[in-house]
Amino acid sequence: MAGTDLKKLARELNLAVSTVSRALRDSHEISAATKARVKALADKYGFRPNPHASSLRQAKSRTIAVVVPEIRNNFFSQAINGIELVAQEKGYHVLIYLTHENSKQEHEVVQLLQNGRADGLLISVTEAESYPHLEACREAELPIVFFDRVVDEIDAPRVITDEKLLAYQTCRRLLESGCERIAFLTMTGNLSISRHRQDGYLQALKEKGKEHLSIIVECSAADDHSREQLKKILSGPQRPDAVFAAVEKLAVDTYEVCAEMGLNIPEDLCVAGFSNLTVASLFNPPLTTVVQPAYEIGKEAAGILFRLIEGKKLLPGEQKRVLPSHLEWRRSTAR
Amino acid sequence: MAGTDLKKLARELNLAVSTVSRALRDSHEISAATKARVKALADKYGFRPNPHASSLRQAKSRTIAVVVPEIRNNFFSQAINGIELVAQEKGYHVLIYLTHENSKQEHEVVQLLQNGRADGLLISVTEAESYPHLEACREAELPIVFFDRVVDEIDAPRVITDEKLLAYQTCRRLLESGCERIAFLTMTGNLSISRHRQDGYLQALKEKGKEHLSIIVECSAADDHSREQLKKILSGPQRPDAVFAAVEKLAVDTYEVCAEMGLNIPEDLCVAGFSNLTVASLFNPPLTTVVQPAYEIGKEAAGILFRLIEGKKLLPGEQKRVLPSHLEWRRSTAR
Repeated sequence: MAGTDLKKLARELNLAVSTVSRALRDSHEISAATKARVKALADKYGFRPNPHASSLRQAKSRTIAVVVPEIRNNFFSQAINGIELVAQEKGYHVLIYLTHENSKQEHEVVQLLQNGRADGLLISVTEAESYPHLEACREAELPIVFFDRVVDEIDAPRVITDEKLLAYQTCRRLLESGCERIAFLTMTGNLSISRHRQDGYLQALKEKGKEHLSIIVECSAADDHSREQLKKILSGPQRPDAVFAAVEKLAVDTYEVCAEMGLNIPEDLCVAGFSNLTVASLFNPPLTTVVQPAYEIGKEAAGILFRLIEGKKLLPGEQKRVLPSHLEWRRSTAR
Repeated sequence: MAGTDLKKLARELNLAVSTVSRALRDSHEISAATKARVKALADKYGFRPNPHASSLRQAKSRTIAVVVPEIRNNFFSQAINGIELVAQEKGYHVLIYLTHENSKQEHEVVQLLQNGRADGLLISVTEAESYPHLEACREAELPIVFFDRVVDEIDAPRVITDEKLLAYQTCRRLLESGCERIAFLTMTGNLSISRHRQDGYLQALKEKGKEHLSIIVECSAADDHSREQLKKILSGPQRPDAVFAAVEKLAVDTYEVCAEMGLNIPEDLCVAGFSNLTVASLFNPPLTTVVQPAYEIGKEAAGILFRLIEGKKLLPGEQKRVLPSHLEWRRSTAR
């Protein structure tokens, strides 16, 4: 069936083109009622679905694309290693694009991928107001799987972790160790991962009746700027007695600022953070971290992507996989 | 001029196709005498060089490819950031491929790039007996620039650091601090970078008349294996009093093994290593590192690649650029 036919059906039925397309391919993602409506109208016009069109299209490149904000961060390099393992088993190449937290760049790169350069896309998104380029992939039937940084509004499988729970547990344990004023450091505040982490932090404070003591610091991505913000907070009259960093870089910045200001960790300030730094235990003092199963996330996400590429049905639970993170409690939080 | 014509000239003159091609394009890399021979024979056959052929070919993808062994290592992620900066200014996309120290994978990926997927290639090679895929790029006139891990035998511009000098300086300073038995830990021993680092180490020992005390440990890339090797060396009867790691991972492994064995750094063992770990100063104790100008290497290599893509002459010194590294002497080597 030609693209114009799909569009005609979609318009008339008031559905997305991708929904119509999936209905005609008998996708499990589409309800039986919708499938019946779509097929009835297609029959009326004498449109013939071509079940092999998308797999033919996809057989071309034997490449999958990974789009991530950066690779300085250990989370992404470990996730990419997991993805590459699966791709190798399938005989596929992996093409990596960095977006550097720049949504315009993400937009351009994803558009590039729609021209047959890749058979599927694994993406951890950059913060943006909307994601028309990802909607376009859905319409172009380029399979997408989100990992870690997802867009709630876009209907595609996702592999994430239980970060709200881990943020809650870390924060509760800090409170139980005697910390009173815990500053929560965050970046890219509108992404769902940042919101979940912040929700976990606030929930722990609320449970202990300490909501009024919350300190949320939205840091800038620029190196110097985040350190300046930290210095201001740590030299104020009501200094926090703990810092919980939603991002690896902000925990490292905190260590550096403490060294500069002559503050001792953990005596003057407890520090914990989300981080997949493999050397966190070698720090002075060893850094308490929430460790995400980055390698497994990459493996899972790639596995799901290949099932989409091969036109297979997803297994139960694959539309949204939540893998467990764990807390490595170390000396930086030992009160 | 057709490829068959180029091959005919090359065969008859006993030159590489790429040499003939560059001679016809009046490349500064080719001697005047060779250019005269090539042009005389081309005239005899009535072959017309097409000066725009290669730039037309290259205008297609507006993408450059970066091929590196891994990204877990901070050197490569910093170099990639430098490359991306230059590519952005030029309006190019950067496509990253990982080879995971697997030469077969490098071969496949580079072959893939010869079909117009990229206009140029920046590569840090994996150890191999030969590099026919890179020779093929030269023949296909796909511009290549090497960075960090280079192949001496292949005629392409390269951006490297003065690692032999820095290895020598580090080792000399260890000897002058009173270390006697310095173990040199290396991987991928046949790569030129490994050889240069080892040469610097040996030169320092030789100058002090301590060549007979050299301990060269060729480590495996597998995590557990390198740690087992380290344990064996550190529990032997003639334990080294210092370790100089040619690779970041081996310095980190040494810290972990010392913690396990109850050895104190630097009292029982001094540790230094080539490393671009930004958190080396946060270690307990802070790690002495040879820091390569990774970001600048990426920027330089990309700048040279774009001059090749744009068909410009290289500036003097661009065929081989050597950027200075520096030594960060910290507490892990304080005797």
